[in-house]
Amino acid sequence: MSEKKHFVTLVGSLRKGSFNAAVAHTLPELAPEGVTISHLGSVGDFPHYNADVQAEGFPAPVLSMAEEIAKADGVIIVTPEYNYSVPGVLKNALDWLSRVSPAPFAGKPVLIQSASPGNIGGARAQYHLRQILVFFDARVMNKPEAMIGQVTDKVKDGVLTDEATRTFLSKQLQAFTDFSA
Amino acid sequence: MSEKKHFVTLVGSLRKGSFNAAVAHTLPELAPEGVTISHLGSVGDFPHYNADVQAEGFPAPVLSMAEEIAKADGVIIVTPEYNYSVPGVLKNALDWLSRVSPAPFAGKPVLIQSASPGNIGGARAQYHLRQILVFFDARVMNKPEAMIGQVTDKVKDGVLTDEATRTFLSKQLQAFTDFSA
Amino acid sequence: MSEKKHFVTLVGSLRKGSFNAAVAHTLPELAPEGVTISHLGSVGDFPHYNADVQAEGFPAPVLSMAEEIAKADGVIIVTPEYNYSVPGVLKNALDWLSRVSPAPFAGKPVLIQSASPGNIGGARAQYHLRQILVFFDARVMNKPEAMIGQVTDKVKDGVLTDEATRTFLSKQLQAFTDFSA
Amino acid sequence: MSEKKHFVTLVGSLRKGSFNAAVAHTLPELAPEGVTISHLGSVGDFPHYNADVQAEGFPAPVLSMAEEIAKADGVIIVTPEYNYSVPGVLKNALDWLSRVSPAPFAGKPVLIQSASPGNIGGARAQYHLRQILVFFDARVMNKPEAMIGQVTDKVKDGVLTDEATRTFLSKQLQAFTDFSA
Repeated sequence: MSEKKHFVTLVGSLRKGSFNAAVAHTLPELAPEGVTISHLGSVGDFPHYNADVQAEGFPAPVLSMAEEIAKADGVIIVTPEYNYSVPGVLKNALDWLSRVSPAPFAGKPVLIQSASPGNIGGARAQYHLRQILVFFDARVMNKPEAMIGQVTDKVKDGVLTDEATRTFLSKQLQAFTDFSA
Repeated sequence: MSEKKHFVTLVGSLRKGSFNAAVAHTLPELAPEGVTISHLGSVGDFPHYNADVQAEGFPAPVLSMAEEIAKADGVIIVTPEYNYSVPGVLKNALDWLSRVSPAPFAGKPVLIQSASPGNIGGARAQYHLRQILVFFDARVMNKPEAMIGQVTDKVKDGVLTDEATRTFLSKQLQAFTDFSA
Repeated sequence: MSEKKHFVTLVGSLRKGSFNAAVAHTLPELAPEGVTISHLGSVGDFPHYNADVQAEGFPAPVLSMAEEIAKADGVIIVTPEYNYSVPGVLKNALDWLSRVSPAPFAGKPVLIQSASPGNIGGARAQYHLRQILVFFDARVMNKPEAMIGQVTDKVKDGVLTDEATRTFLSKQLQAFTDFSA
Repeated sequence: MSEKKHFVTLVGSLRKGSFNAAVAHTLPELAPEGVTISHLGSVGDFPHYNADVQAEGFPAPVLSMAEEIAKADGVIIVTPEYNYSVPGVLKNALDWLSRVSPAPFAGKPVLIQSASPGNIGGARAQYHLRQILVFFDARVMNKPEAMIGQVTDKVKDGVLTDEATRTFLSKQLQAFTDFSA
């Protein structure tokens, strides 16, 4: 029996040549059969979170992303680590999404991936993100964790080319498909 | 001998009626003699961090805030907790500031304060912020810590009016003055 | 239809008059119908974790606690915060349990409760514990969270007497019963 | 002018062949001129922390370690990561030491090192330890950080032999000597 699942990716970097965006864009071809993956809009389209702005109405990109998340079977957050934590732009998007009702992340299966040029692979960002997602009541998969180090050697022309990492992420996507069932 | 110190505040909320902004704006009148406190510009004036934008040159508000921080004897970060962590807008400002050279926070004395309507008083944001500031090589004061709970009862018309909290913050500012010596 | 669940409590303090032990011991009377709760042995019965000792065979109290956890429908960890983190004695017990195979906590529903004399109610210990439990692949309930502040006023003669807290914990136990289904 | 400093190491593992103990024992030969380094007793000599036991008097190994720390110019904590955090045995020692008065760690320069077989090098333990040491009011050096990955290839016969790591730790010890001035 083939599983029919649809996941969406949320990318934490705005840089055009972002390694993490490259990882996210490679995921569809690594997904198990029956699983489709599409990409949410850019977190750069959100204004800075401000409760006064919210009081005048949620910006359209916030509402539309919240709706896509609500409809998806799972969210894959792919993000760099900035300064030992979550990038401000990603956190800002989460701050907006946390105010939308009904809560798009409540009970939602979430997978975290991070990539960095160094050895740590973004681990510090991941544990901060996990704490944030407790508040969201998201259902974050524990294992296997994807902390991709030395990413500059593993991406070519916007595609994740490193075979070992591709194999690992294929397995992780299979685990996430099972987890989201 | 009177100490001549100048501290600057960095506020993590953009809301006009922000309780944390109210706390920050009350600090000058609680400072020890000889200590002046002024307020940095709004973190809302920074664009979203994007390395491609940085490559074209740092935005003026980033450079000007970096310069004010570099000249100050200490930085007081006053911030709400959003979703169990640092507000995205504040983290975004720190992401920009972390790229400026020479590093404005390196070796700089930093004091953290947070206020929230609940009991926890923003503690979760503070420990994330401390981890971030390790990367900055900032010199963050340990104690006493200011986590102001039930802040909605303690601020009136944009001023921190609660006597016990004012006394506590006066003592904390004295400790920070000594710490920054 | 009544649910038949059995939960076990794991207490992080060795003190005879421990407030957290008092909370744990009050839980059975707050549990939903059909739910029974018993108490695991003391973490004080475990030796200090040492891989050399492990190589000679797991101590009997470790194996017996691992077995009780494996058989339970969920584990309720009730712990004080020591020095902004998990008590060493509790972490030591977890260090032992993490080595037992098959892993007793893998996929196991876990509920965290903490109590402290101050306002924070042990929050800092809870987030460290959550990070530890990612490694265990435990299934930790997100919400509602139980951080019981001012506990010295809420316990009398080894029983949690504060009505508001009792009501809250009753609801949390109901939520955990649903979560563990 | 030669600096006269004396540092003490605190090791977080009880295993005889501990890689972290090997790192600690190699430090004296990597220290700058004028700096001596000796090793504190084993954290395995402390009983489990229990406030009832404390009430009868501090165990002798606790008092003697507290005294050595108080006299030292700095403490170097060298520890593995267990289950994404600080080893229970190390945290237990810190729980005891935190109760001794006057507080041996207050204002004390602290350096953290960790080694692990994987890529992360114990980073998760280090940030938990940093949060704990805020409570201690210790003065923890920010940078450079020593997270030694793939340690199984870097230690031979109880000595750290990897040249790149030895050079790095020499520089870190020099930085810590300056920091502790």
